[in-house]
Amino acid sequence: MNKLIYEQPLNEKTRSYLRLEYLANQLQSNLVQDHQHRCFYPLFSLCELTERCDYQIEIIKDIDKQLQQLTHWQNQNNTDKQQLTDLIDRLKDARKYLIHYQRPGQILKQDRFLSALRQRFGMPGACCNFDLPQLHFWLAKPFDVRLQEYRTWIAHFDCLLTPIKLLLELTRQTTHYTDETAIAGFYQGNSEQALSLIRVKLDAAQGCYPTISGNRNRYAIHFVGFEQQKHSDQTIDFMLATCR
Amino acid sequence: MNKLIYEQPLNEKTRSYLRLEYLANQLQSNLVQDHQHRCFYPLFSLCELTERCDYQIEIIKDIDKQLQQLTHWQNQNNTDKQQLTDLIDRLKDARKYLIHYQRPGQILKQDRFLSALRQRFGMPGACCNFDLPQLHFWLAKPFDVRLQEYRTWIAHFDCLLTPIKLLLELTRQTTHYTDETAIAGFYQGNSEQALSLIRVKLDAAQGCYPTISGNRNRYAIHFVGFEQQKHSDQTIDFMLATCR
Repeated sequence: MNKLIYEQPLNEKTRSYLRLEYLANQLQSNLVQDHQHRCFYPLFSLCELTERCDYQIEIIKDIDKQLQQLTHWQNQNNTDKQQLTDLIDRLKDARKYLIHYQRPGQILKQDRFLSALRQRFGMPGACCNFDLPQLHFWLAKPFDVRLQEYRTWIAHFDCLLTPIKLLLELTRQTTHYTDETAIAGFYQGNSEQALSLIRVKLDAAQGCYPTISGNRNRYAIHFVGFEQQKHSDQTIDFMLATCR
Repeated sequence: MNKLIYEQPLNEKTRSYLRLEYLANQLQSNLVQDHQHRCFYPLFSLCELTERCDYQIEIIKDIDKQLQQLTHWQNQNNTDKQQLTDLIDRLKDARKYLIHYQRPGQILKQDRFLSALRQRFGMPGACCNFDLPQLHFWLAKPFDVRLQEYRTWIAHFDCLLTPIKLLLELTRQTTHYTDETAIAGFYQGNSEQALSLIRVKLDAAQGCYPTISGNRNRYAIHFVGFEQQKHSDQTIDFMLATCR
């Protein structure tokens, strides 16, 4: 059984968070395995997104909202106080760390090596030996030496990525999966409470993937057969979580 | 001793060939190690370059020139006839194979899976789960299954990449390395015969990389210290090959 989880954000903020979380995971995967020059793709993507958009204000607003909610729960009787206190501490730490930072990643713009690479990385096949002899030099360093430098670079985004992972964790915890069935490859639902994230858990053996659309109160899931690359007409059992 | 080779093309044709050869090596590296979604970068770069530019005519012209030269040598006494015959056969095979193909890689445009991916791959962080659920599905397949599909896709470029590798091999064989010294990080040279490729072999321990510029009759090599990212003022021993 190879259960895959597909997620669909239902608002712009969650969309941004998921995109940044995806890049955070990419950065992490470059710490585990040597993907050579490919390690720069998520780093430069992060540089570009954070230059284009200031996520800090939004994140701080979100942290404050969560803190208010969690403190409210802390005063209720039937709650796991220790877990709540831990969460509150993590959020407060992340907030302090984030506020302290002026424009995350900005400092990397001053790195001449990274700047030269970044200019080239968008072009097809433009990381050649002759385009970037400095990259050729860098890649010949032992992996652990490169890793050390890479850690320094990506650390500049921690202040942003740590709270985002935490906030998404909280979003995902707002609900549980339920068993559902799509008839003729289609399922739709609605919710009176505003939703921010749809999650579909599906066995890969079913041979299809979901395409999900919707807004905070309504959503629709179409299942697409991978081999035929077209809408499935099958009855499909899956698990669904609609997160607030 | 970690000797690195830096290459600089001195004409547009060699520049294109080196870029395509680089991508060919990238494709190969994806057959050896699982780089997940990153395997698509060189594939899409190749698609883009081959759509933008028709390399076939240039390559066939080059093959014919080489065949003429090699046949001429075959008629001389002091040559290794067997090696020449092998080379001639390889070039003839590559020529036959290339002529047979109409626009390499064109067929991949009709692949709906690849087309959907390609649209997204240029955007920063745009290979998310929700951007491309089909990629998420595909990446969950076992590596050997993905490998099989990948081989099928990249095989469409063989007709182009095989002769390019062969032609560059012949270019690199036109000369041998000689020991040279750069004074105050600088070296220049000239040649009455038209050159197409400069190769510099340098020990990584020297802590610098060459930036090479030039045209078919003149070239200059500046050595740059990696840590300082500026021109070196040291005396630097290196090996040089100026290929025709």
